[in-house]
Amino acid sequence: MTAHPVRPHDDAGLLSPVRAGVPAEAAVGDPAWLQAMLDAEAALVRAQARLGTVPGSAARAIGAAARAGRFDVRELALAARETANPVVGLVRELTRLVAAEDPEAAEYVHRGSTSQDILDTGAMLVAFRALRLIRADLARTAAALAALAERHRDTPLAGRTLTLHAVPTTFGLKAAGWHALVVDAEARLARVQESLPTSLGGAAGTLGGYLEYARLAAPGDFDAETYLQDLGAAFAEETGLAESVLPWHALRGPVADLAGALAFTAGALGKLAVDVQSLARTEVGEVAEPAGAAGRGASSAMPHKRNPVLATLIRSAALQVPALAAVLTQCLVTEDERSAGVWHAEWQPLREALRLTGGAAHTAVELAEGLEVRADRMRSNLALTGGQVVSERVAAVLAPRLGKAEAKALLTRASARAEAEGLPLAEVLASAPELSGAPAREELTRLCDPASYVGAAGFLVDTSLKGER
Amino acid sequence: MTAHPVRPHDDAGLLSPVRAGVPAEAAVGDPAWLQAMLDAEAALVRAQARLGTVPGSAARAIGAAARAGRFDVRELALAARETANPVVGLVRELTRLVAAEDPEAAEYVHRGSTSQDILDTGAMLVAFRALRLIRADLARTAAALAALAERHRDTPLAGRTLTLHAVPTTFGLKAAGWHALVVDAEARLARVQESLPTSLGGAAGTLGGYLEYARLAAPGDFDAETYLQDLGAAFAEETGLAESVLPWHALRGPVADLAGALAFTAGALGKLAVDVQSLARTEVGEVAEPAGAAGRGASSAMPHKRNPVLATLIRSAALQVPALAAVLTQCLVTEDERSAGVWHAEWQPLREALRLTGGAAHTAVELAEGLEVRADRMRSNLALTGGQVVSERVAAVLAPRLGKAEAKALLTRASARAEAEGLPLAEVLASAPELSGAPAREELTRLCDPASYVGAAGFLVDTSLKGER
Amino acid sequence: MTAHPVRPHDDAGLLSPVRAGVPAEAAVGDPAWLQAMLDAEAALVRAQARLGTVPGSAARAIGAAARAGRFDVRELALAARETANPVVGLVRELTRLVAAEDPEAAEYVHRGSTSQDILDTGAMLVAFRALRLIRADLARTAAALAALAERHRDTPLAGRTLTLHAVPTTFGLKAAGWHALVVDAEARLARVQESLPTSLGGAAGTLGGYLEYARLAAPGDFDAETYLQDLGAAFAEETGLAESVLPWHALRGPVADLAGALAFTAGALGKLAVDVQSLARTEVGEVAEPAGAAGRGASSAMPHKRNPVLATLIRSAALQVPALAAVLTQCLVTEDERSAGVWHAEWQPLREALRLTGGAAHTAVELAEGLEVRADRMRSNLALTGGQVVSERVAAVLAPRLGKAEAKALLTRASARAEAEGLPLAEVLASAPELSGAPAREELTRLCDPASYVGAAGFLVDTSLKGER
Amino acid sequence: MTAHPVRPHDDAGLLSPVRAGVPAEAAVGDPAWLQAMLDAEAALVRAQARLGTVPGSAARAIGAAARAGRFDVRELALAARETANPVVGLVRELTRLVAAEDPEAAEYVHRGSTSQDILDTGAMLVAFRALRLIRADLARTAAALAALAERHRDTPLAGRTLTLHAVPTTFGLKAAGWHALVVDAEARLARVQESLPTSLGGAAGTLGGYLEYARLAAPGDFDAETYLQDLGAAFAEETGLAESVLPWHALRGPVADLAGALAFTAGALGKLAVDVQSLARTEVGEVAEPAGAAGRGASSAMPHKRNPVLATLIRSAALQVPALAAVLTQCLVTEDERSAGVWHAEWQPLREALRLTGGAAHTAVELAEGLEVRADRMRSNLALTGGQVVSERVAAVLAPRLGKAEAKALLTRASARAEAEGLPLAEVLASAPELSGAPAREELTRLCDPASYVGAAGFLVDTSLKGER
Repeated sequence: MTAHPVRPHDDAGLLSPVRAGVPAEAAVGDPAWLQAMLDAEAALVRAQARLGTVPGSAARAIGAAARAGRFDVRELALAARETANPVVGLVRELTRLVAAEDPEAAEYVHRGSTSQDILDTGAMLVAFRALRLIRADLARTAAALAALAERHRDTPLAGRTLTLHAVPTTFGLKAAGWHALVVDAEARLARVQESLPTSLGGAAGTLGGYLEYARLAAPGDFDAETYLQDLGAAFAEETGLAESVLPWHALRGPVADLAGALAFTAGALGKLAVDVQSLARTEVGEVAEPAGAAGRGASSAMPHKRNPVLATLIRSAALQVPALAAVLTQCLVTEDERSAGVWHAEWQPLREALRLTGGAAHTAVELAEGLEVRADRMRSNLALTGGQVVSERVAAVLAPRLGKAEAKALLTRASARAEAEGLPLAEVLASAPELSGAPAREELTRLCDPASYVGAAGFLVDTSLKGER
Repeated sequence: MTAHPVRPHDDAGLLSPVRAGVPAEAAVGDPAWLQAMLDAEAALVRAQARLGTVPGSAARAIGAAARAGRFDVRELALAARETANPVVGLVRELTRLVAAEDPEAAEYVHRGSTSQDILDTGAMLVAFRALRLIRADLARTAAALAALAERHRDTPLAGRTLTLHAVPTTFGLKAAGWHALVVDAEARLARVQESLPTSLGGAAGTLGGYLEYARLAAPGDFDAETYLQDLGAAFAEETGLAESVLPWHALRGPVADLAGALAFTAGALGKLAVDVQSLARTEVGEVAEPAGAAGRGASSAMPHKRNPVLATLIRSAALQVPALAAVLTQCLVTEDERSAGVWHAEWQPLREALRLTGGAAHTAVELAEGLEVRADRMRSNLALTGGQVVSERVAAVLAPRLGKAEAKALLTRASARAEAEGLPLAEVLASAPELSGAPAREELTRLCDPASYVGAAGFLVDTSLKGER
Repeated sequence: MTAHPVRPHDDAGLLSPVRAGVPAEAAVGDPAWLQAMLDAEAALVRAQARLGTVPGSAARAIGAAARAGRFDVRELALAARETANPVVGLVRELTRLVAAEDPEAAEYVHRGSTSQDILDTGAMLVAFRALRLIRADLARTAAALAALAERHRDTPLAGRTLTLHAVPTTFGLKAAGWHALVVDAEARLARVQESLPTSLGGAAGTLGGYLEYARLAAPGDFDAETYLQDLGAAFAEETGLAESVLPWHALRGPVADLAGALAFTAGALGKLAVDVQSLARTEVGEVAEPAGAAGRGASSAMPHKRNPVLATLIRSAALQVPALAAVLTQCLVTEDERSAGVWHAEWQPLREALRLTGGAAHTAVELAEGLEVRADRMRSNLALTGGQVVSERVAAVLAPRLGKAEAKALLTRASARAEAEGLPLAEVLASAPELSGAPAREELTRLCDPASYVGAAGFLVDTSLKGER
Repeated sequence: MTAHPVRPHDDAGLLSPVRAGVPAEAAVGDPAWLQAMLDAEAALVRAQARLGTVPGSAARAIGAAARAGRFDVRELALAARETANPVVGLVRELTRLVAAEDPEAAEYVHRGSTSQDILDTGAMLVAFRALRLIRADLARTAAALAALAERHRDTPLAGRTLTLHAVPTTFGLKAAGWHALVVDAEARLARVQESLPTSLGGAAGTLGGYLEYARLAAPGDFDAETYLQDLGAAFAEETGLAESVLPWHALRGPVADLAGALAFTAGALGKLAVDVQSLARTEVGEVAEPAGAAGRGASSAMPHKRNPVLATLIRSAALQVPALAAVLTQCLVTEDERSAGVWHAEWQPLREALRLTGGAAHTAVELAEGLEVRADRMRSNLALTGGQVVSERVAAVLAPRLGKAEAKALLTRASARAEAEGLPLAEVLASAPELSGAPAREELTRLCDPASYVGAAGFLVDTSLKGER
C-alpha cells in the first residue's frame, strides 16, 4: 500500500494539510529550490557567455548538467552543515557532473560567483514561480467572491459587531469586503513579484570576482563599467527577474517586501475564513462549506458532523504566516557584508510562508467557489431581536422630535424592555408614553423592519466591484 | 526639582529612551491621538454641513469645542473600560461641551457615526502626521549617508562575511547600501502615507446612520448615492486623507500596510546600527559615534568609555517593531463587521511602532550626520591577514594556469600556511612549488594588495546615488 | 474639567483601556520603575553598610534621598538618550540630592556598581510587585470560576468543535477548564516570582568594582569570597529578591522566564474571553457579561447594544502579550558581557507585558464574578439539532448490532436526512429499514436526549476542583 | 548518483542545515509523528483491554497493524485536507489493515475516541522522544562548557559591553555563563518533559464515547468513575506520559509550556553562538571553531576562509524559534471545545521548534567540545587600550583621595588623552598634576595591569560549576 518509500526525516505535509498537495507546495519544495539555484548557475554562465568572457559551449554544458534530478538533494542538505549553506556542495557536484562531460567547461562553473548570489537568485526564482501560482488562485478566489457579492447584493443579514447584532447589512457587502481584501492582496503580491531581483554581488558585494575573471578573459581594453551593466542586464534577462542597483547580500529589502505581502495575503484569507466560521456556527447556519467529496468534513467520532474544514485550513495558515514574516523582517537587521546566521535564518521561514500562503489561497478557491449561502437563515436570524437590530435608525427618526440624546435613551430603555419581555421593539415603542401615539404603529413597524435598513450596501457593492476608488 | 507632577501610571519614556523627546513621540501621544479623534468629529460635521444636512453654525460650534486641551485624557482612558473604546466617552464629553455653548449644535455631534469611524480616522491622522516627521528624518539621514558614500567612495576597508574578512570593499559602498535601504524605507512610507484612508462606515459599515439622518434633514428628493459620494469626498478633503471605497472596519489592509512599512523602516535603520556597532568594536575601531554633548556615551562605572549609544538606541527599536508589526498584521484576521478584541489590540502596538520607528529615525539623523570615519584603521585592519583577504582574486588570476579547482586548493593551502606561520600570503605563494616562480614575486605582491581589489565599488556607489535602477 | 495637565508625550492608557486604572498599571509606571531602581541603590548601600565597608550614616542618607517623588522622571528619560539607559542620570541626580544633605554620604552612592545592576534589580522588583497584584487577581478569578463550575456542574450545553455542535457537555466542565488554566497560570507566575533575582555583577559581571571598593575600605585582612557571599545574601535580603549565582547581565534567563509565564497567563485569560464571546453571540445567548455600571457596554451608535466589553478588553491583551514575550525571549541572544541594544530592547516590552497581563487579570475578576449564565438558552440550543448532537452515542449503541463502521455510516445518513427534512434524529432512525423497529422508538428517543449524554463531565469537574492530578 | 528518489514536495533540510541529519530531525519527521499516533491508538486499546472492555486479542491485532511503515504518509497528508486532520484517514487505514487480519478486532479501533486524543497524545510522544535527544545533547554541551570554564578559570580577556572593552574578565567566567544557561535550559526541558500528558477526552472532552462503549461492554454493574480513573492511569502507563486531570483539547497549557522551554533553549544556545562569533571576528581572533572535516567552513568563493559555521547554524535556529513559540503560545486563545484552526496551527510550528532546537543542541555539542581558545590573543587584545580597560579600578583606588566624582572625572580626561595620544593610561596618570606624583608610577602601572583586575571571576566559576545557588 505504501507507494512512497518512507525516510525518517520526511516532512510530507502530514502536519500541514493546508498545503499538502497544492501547487505552491511543489513549487517551493527542495527539488524546486535546488532547480532554481541550478537555474541561477546556468543563467549566470549564459549571461557571461553572451558577453564573450566564457565560451558558449561551456554555458551549454553547464546548462545541460544543471538538472535537479541529477543531484541528491538530501546529500546536499547534509553537506550544507559543513559550510552553512547548500551552494558549496551544489557547486562541487555541478562541477563534477560538467567535468564528466566536458572538462574544460567545468572551469566556468560558478565563475566569479559566491554562494549568496546563487542562493538568493534561486530564492527569488522560487518566490517568483510560487507567486504566479498564488496570484492565480487569488484571482480565481476574487472572481468567485465577486460573483457572490453580485448575487447577494441585496440579501440582508445581521451586521455583527462585538459578537452582537448591530444593524442590518447585506451578504453582498460582506462578500464585497472579502473580495476587496483579496484583490488588495493580489495587487501587493504583483508589485512585489515584479520587483524580485537577481542577486549579483560576488564575495562581498563588490562584484570583484566577476570583474577579475572577465578582465582576464576579455580581449584588449576591458571596460569594467560597461561589462557590469551588460552582465547585470543579461543575468536579469536570463532569469526573468528584475535588477538591483546594489548587491543586496546584506540589504534585505526584497525579502522583507515578500514577507509583508505574504502576511497581508494570509491575513486577508484568514479574514474570509473566520467570517465563514462565524456564519457557519450551528446556531447561525447562514453559510455552509461546499459539500466536496464524500467524507469531506467528516469527524472521526461524530457521524452527523460536516466540519467547515476549508476555513479551518485557511485559518491555520493565517495564524502562522505573520510570525514567519516577523522573522523575515527582523532579518533586515543583519551585520556586515553577510551575516553569520541572520541570512541563514531566512530560508526555511520564507519557504514556509510561501507554502502556507499558497495553501491558503488554493483552499480559498474551493471555499469561495462553492460556498453555500442560506438567505433564509440570514432573514430568520435578522428577526431574532424583534427589531432591536434597527434601534439606531429608530433613534435617528425620533431625534428631531425628542432630541438625539433623549431619542437614544428611549431606545435603550425600550430595547431593554423588549429583551426582557420578549416583545417586538415596535410594540414596546407603540406603548411608550414618551411617544404618545406618534409615530403611528404601522410607521413604527415599518421602521423596525430590518430588511429596509441596509443603508448603502448595494451601492457600495456596485462601486467596489467596479474597482473604483 | 520636579517640574512635572508625577502620576503613577506615567509612561514618559523612562524605559524607551530611543523615543523620549523625539518629535514622533509627541505626535502619537495620548493628547495627539485625542486631538486627531476630535479632528475627525469636526471634519465629519463640516463635511455634513457642506452637503447641507447640518447647519454650518453647528459645525462651527463643534469645531470650536473639539480641542484636546478641554478634555481630560486620563478620564477618557478610564471611561473606555466601560465601553472598550474611548470614543463613547469622547462623544459624551464633546456633546456636553458643545451644549454648554450652543445646545442646538449638540444635536449634530457624531451624527450618524460610530466609534470606529472616529477612532480609525483619528488613527490615520495620527499616522499621517507621524509619517511626515519620520519621512523628514529619513530624508535627512539619507542625505547624510549619501554624503558619506561620496566622501568615502574609494576608502577601502575589509568586506566581512560570517564575521571574517572576505574580500576588500569600500566604506563608500557600505554607506551607499545604508543609503539605499533608508531611501527604500522612505519610499515605502510615502506610498503608505498617501494611501491612508478616512474611515466612514457607520454602525456596521453600511453607512445607514449617515444616510438616515441625511434623508431626514434633506429637502425633497434625496439621492442617496450622490450624497454618499459627496460625503466621502468632503470628509476626505476635510481631513486630508484618502478615501476608501469600502468601509474598512473589518478590512484592516491600511493597518497592515502601515505595519509592513514601519517594520521595514525600523529594520533598515537597525542594519545601519549593527554595522556601526560592528565597526566600532574596540578591536576594529573603524568608526566612532559623534561625540555629542559632554557625557554622551558615558558609563555609570567606567570612566574611559564612550559607548555607541545612538546605534544602541536604534537597535533597541529595530528589535521591537517587527513583533509589533506581526501583531498588527495578525489583526487582519478579524471576525464579523467589527471584532470583539482584534480591533482593540491594534491601537497601542500601532502607536508603539510609530513611536519607536520615529525615535530610531530621529536618532539616525544624528548618527549619520556625525559619524566619525577612520580610514587609517580601515586600512590597517585590511592588512591584518597579510593579503589573505584577496585570496579570491589570486585564485582567479592563477585559474587559467592551474585550473580553477587547483588554483582554489592552492590558495586554501597557502592561506592556511600563511595563517599558521604569520607570513604574508604573497611570500608563501612566492615559494610555492606549484607556481615555480611565476608569476613574479612583485606581481604576487601587487595582486595581494587589498586596496587594489575593491571591484566595482566606486561604480556601484555612483550608480546607486544617482538613484538609477 | 481637566484636572490633569496634558503633556504631549503622555501615554495614559487612552489606547489601552484593558489596563487603564488597574493596579498593575501603577505598579509598572515610570514612577514605580524609578522608585524600584532607587530601592535597588538604597538596598545596595544598606547591604554594603551591613558588611562594614560603608558607613551606616551614608546608607541612611542615601535611603532618605532615594524617593521617586524627588526626581523628575521625564528629565531622566530625556537624559537617558545620552547614555542609552536611565541609570547614569539617576545616579547623578541621586548623588546631588544626597550631597546636599550629607556630602560625605554622596561618596557612597552606586559604589562599585554599574547601570545594569540597578536597572535589572529594579526591573525584578517591579516585576515582583506587579506579579503579586496579578496573582491576587488570578486567585480571585479562579475562585469565581470554581464557584461557577460547581454551581453549573450539571448544566448541560452543546459541546462545540470546529464551530459546530459536537456532543453535549456541561457548563460546569467548561468553567472548570477555565479555572484549571487560570490556576496553572498562577502557578507559573508564582514559580517565576520566587525565582526573580537581584542583579549584582559590576561593570562586566566580575564584581570587580564592588570588591575593589570593599578591599580599600576593609580593615586588615580582606577575604574576597566571604565578602561576596555576604554581599549577595545581604542584597537579596534587603530587596526581598532571590540570589543568582552568576551575574546575569548577558544571561537573560530571568527575563525569558517572566516572558513565558506572562504569555501563558494572558493566553489563559484569552481563552476565557473568546469562550465568553462565543457563548454571548446574539444567536447563542448562553452567557452575558455582568451588567456593571449604567452605560457599561454601550455603543456610540446603537442604543440596544450591551457589548461584551470585559471579554473584549481581555482578548485585546491576549493578542499582544505573546509577541512581546517573543521579543523578550529573543533577547536571550545577546552578545558579549552586555549587549548594545538587545538589553535595551527588553525594558518597554517587559513593562507592557506586565501591564497588559495585569489589566487582563483585573478585568477577568469582574467577568468571572459577574458572568450571567443562561441555562435555559443552553438547553434550547442543545435541542437545535433534533438529537444529532448525540449521534456519537447512538452509533456506539448500535455498533454491537451493526458493526461500528455500518453504525457510523447509518448515523451519517440519518443525520443528513434529519437535517434536510428538519426531523428529529430519533424519528428518522425509527423508520430506518436497517434497524427494522429495534431499538424501540422510546429507546431511540431516550438515547437521543442530549441532557443524558454528558459523559463524565460532573466527575471531571469534581476531580479538577479538588486539585487532584 | 541520486540514491533518494526526488518528490516535488520534499523538504529534506536543504534550507535548514542546522537540523539536517541530526537525531531530532528524524524524531519529529512525518514517519515518527505517524508512528506516535499509531502508538497512541495501540496504547489506548491496550488500556481498554486491561480494563476488560475490549478483547485482548483485538488489542494485539491492532498493535500489530500499527506500524508506520505500513502506511503511506503522503496519502494521509493529502487525505487530511478533507477532514482538516490526519487522524480520520489514519483510523480508516488502520481499520482496513486490522480487518484484513482479524475482522472482529477492527471493531475496536479508535473505540470511543476522537481525532484530537490521538493527535495530541501522538504529539506529546513525539515531543517526549525529541526532548530526550535534545536533553542529551544539552548535557554533553554543558559538560564541554564546564570543562572549558575550568580550564580557563583564570584566563583573562576583555569584558565587552556595548561593543567596547569594559573591564577585564576571564574566559572561564564567560564559559561558565554559557554553561549556566545551558543547564537552565536543560532543567526547563526536563520539567516540561515529565509533565507532558496523554490526551483523553473523547469528542468534546466529556469522555462520553469511552464511557458509552465501556458501559455497553462491561458486565453488570458499571462504575463509571472507577473506570475512568483506571482508563486514564492505564493509558498513561501504556504511553509513558503523564496524566491530565481535565481533557485539554482546548486548554493548551502543555503546548505553551513546551513552546516556552524550547524558546528558552534555542535562545540559550543562540547566546553561545553570538559570543563565539564576536570572539571569532578577524580582528579579535580569540576563539576559532573546531576544524572538523576537510572543507568545514569553506566558502564557495574565498579560499582562505574558515567560516564559523557551527555558530552560524545555531544562530539561524535561535532567530526562528521564538517566533514559532509565539505562534504556539498564541494558540492558548482557542475557542469552544475544539477550535476551527487554532489547534491546527500548532502542529507544524511545534515540529519546527523541536527540530530547530534539536539541531541547535546537536550542533552545540560539536562547537563546545571542539572550541579552540586562544589565550594569547585574549591577552594581546586586553592590552589594546593601554590600560583604559581598568579605568574603573583606578578610579576606585583614587576615590578616597580625590572624591569619587573627581576621581571618575580625572580618569575620563586621562583616558581621552591616552586615547588621543596613543599613550598608556598609567603614563598619562603619572604626569597628571591632580595626582602630583602619588601614587607612585610603579603603583599606577600595577593598577593598570588588566590581568590583575578580574574581580571574583574565578570564585564565580567555581561556585557556578558546583551548581550552588
